[in-house]
Amino acid sequence: MDIAILGYGTVGKGVDTIISAQLDGCAVTRILELPDRLVDGRMTASFDEIVGDPSIEVVVECMGGIEPARSFIARSLSAGKHVITSNKAVVAAHFGEFVSLADEHRVGFFIEASTGGGIPWIASIEKARRIDAISSFSGIMNGTSNFIIDAMLKDGSDFGEALARAQELGYAEHDPSADIDGIDVKNKTIISASVAFDVNCIHSLPVSGIRTITKADLEAFAAEGCVVKLLGRGVCRDGRYAVAVEPVALPEDSLEAHVPANFNLVTLVGETIGELKFYGQGAGMLPTGNAIVQDVLDCISGIRPSYHFDTQLDYDPSLLTGDYRFRSNVAPEGAEPLGERRWLLRAASAETARSVLDHVLSKDPSAFMAALS
Amino acid sequence: MDIAILGYGTVGKGVDTIISAQLDGCAVTRILELPDRLVDGRMTASFDEIVGDPSIEVVVECMGGIEPARSFIARSLSAGKHVITSNKAVVAAHFGEFVSLADEHRVGFFIEASTGGGIPWIASIEKARRIDAISSFSGIMNGTSNFIIDAMLKDGSDFGEALARAQELGYAEHDPSADIDGIDVKNKTIISASVAFDVNCIHSLPVSGIRTITKADLEAFAAEGCVVKLLGRGVCRDGRYAVAVEPVALPEDSLEAHVPANFNLVTLVGETIGELKFYGQGAGMLPTGNAIVQDVLDCISGIRPSYHFDTQLDYDPSLLTGDYRFRSNVAPEGAEPLGERRWLLRAASAETARSVLDHVLSKDPSAFMAALS
Repeated sequence: MDIAILGYGTVGKGVDTIISAQLDGCAVTRILELPDRLVDGRMTASFDEIVGDPSIEVVVECMGGIEPARSFIARSLSAGKHVITSNKAVVAAHFGEFVSLADEHRVGFFIEASTGGGIPWIASIEKARRIDAISSFSGIMNGTSNFIIDAMLKDGSDFGEALARAQELGYAEHDPSADIDGIDVKNKTIISASVAFDVNCIHSLPVSGIRTITKADLEAFAAEGCVVKLLGRGVCRDGRYAVAVEPVALPEDSLEAHVPANFNLVTLVGETIGELKFYGQGAGMLPTGNAIVQDVLDCISGIRPSYHFDTQLDYDPSLLTGDYRFRSNVAPEGAEPLGERRWLLRAASAETARSVLDHVLSKDPSAFMAALS
Repeated sequence: MDIAILGYGTVGKGVDTIISAQLDGCAVTRILELPDRLVDGRMTASFDEIVGDPSIEVVVECMGGIEPARSFIARSLSAGKHVITSNKAVVAAHFGEFVSLADEHRVGFFIEASTGGGIPWIASIEKARRIDAISSFSGIMNGTSNFIIDAMLKDGSDFGEALARAQELGYAEHDPSADIDGIDVKNKTIISASVAFDVNCIHSLPVSGIRTITKADLEAFAAEGCVVKLLGRGVCRDGRYAVAVEPVALPEDSLEAHVPANFNLVTLVGETIGELKFYGQGAGMLPTGNAIVQDVLDCISGIRPSYHFDTQLDYDPSLLTGDYRFRSNVAPEGAEPLGERRWLLRAASAETARSVLDHVLSKDPSAFMAALS
């Protein structure tokens, strides 16, 4: 089976390495790269050459970003090629479109590497769904923000030092917004909800990040036996669903509280299986490469993920309702004072809490908010 | 697809419930029960009737114990029926025999429910092995012993009270030896090693349990920042492997230290995937039933686990070597005194530590030993 890789960065190289070293019966025969980086006989700068090559049965997209990834994926599916991608941004934005194209052209669309890094998260949701309705999921899905919080707690670094260290280690980009503002987790939450609840998940969910978290915030939560983690969450009940991304204060005796460095921990809850948790590397050349190669192996075995997104579910933000803690110089609307610059907003939906935070941030850009679990 | 269930206890009932409620295209048509319990038209006390019925394609064995389970599984496979079992004792004892019979008669032999309860542990090892060599595994594989230790730590119960509570809740048997002496974990460790390392795993591994653990032992470890858990472990390196079952003192900031009640947490380490951890219910009607029904679904999809156990590996106990802490009235051979009744045995293999413990227990039957992680 001949495979083309689009993009030869960290992940693309990892996939090439694993396939070449360990997989009999398939070979990476074409690689799409920039015109000034064609250092290997398999490389080309022309996508047309790849999509027009009938010997290529599988296209592995590791370019990231929306365009040209979206067009290349759509054209590959339309050309009857299976597509495997690690690109959460493009999957979250165009999942429904890709699934329709894959159906129409009777090919597979594989996304294991888009969410949860090396954790077999998408496959585990799909497997659980064969028997169970999934009633909720939640998880630490972004290694960079977990690394930052963990470093602040363990080394006493402040946010800026911890972020700089994450950048040095290659975990965070030069512009770290996608990680620390929750955008990366938002994409993974949309993908997880789509698969778990079989729904065309809304894109306008409430999203808060950890950009303004301080050592003092972490210490205040620690004094109450809690650790803050940035979580993506989804709930589905009685024909309704809700999703959100926000920092959550979790009990110190939870497993989540002890996830170190840039690891991920994701949880699903099913009716008969109960709670299942999965822990592993959230990113990196070999773990992400491994997830893609698992998809290649499934593809070779004739497995085709079957997404439909035809469950009729109403989006109901009230399903994710709880208490919120604020640290800010101004009083959040509807919140009770708890002490110096500390406030409690009771029984708010994630959506309400996010709009209260918006108002607070417009007056105190350093404010921080976390949900209480 | 017509299915027969052998044994209609908790697990058998769970399987029947899930299949009847959720699975189209297959039905439980026969159930093997004791002659005085035939309360359902599908029930028979005659295994001959089931094995001789050509309409039965799948036999689900939930009887437990070695005989007659061993004969019934062997005869079912020989009659060309797929077999799915939750019976860790019989799988650990006769895995190789069953795999040969399944190969010979071109049927599937499925064991997901034997190890890790509702956690997709066997499937996850098999999946990781498609790409990676598994270099080690370890895990909390027995819910009862985890429940006892957790209750002793959280409620201040002593061992006897915690065990009685586990028995009340139905987690522990009237005779709890298999759980508290490590026999249950031994079976699961043999099965995990067989699948992970593709080897006919030895049966005479070192096994220690938690029968003699006291609140004072747990407090002494807590003072050093550790929590004791009963672990099954395996290591494979350079053509050699080792396995052991023993209490291990783990750092308080490890995930394992925070596994509550009767949950399980199992870990594998692969070359490219790194560390993967899986957490869930270790037993119970619905989680174990779910694991069996996952095997039924795989069986229907035409998936056949392919075990071979033909990897040439030498058993080398020195691969599992570390320091051991003893609490005893007598000096363990080769150990240094640490304080009142406390001793440290350095750089011993699990096998050596177990034989030192045997000698200690012959003089002080209340002695306790744990490995330091």
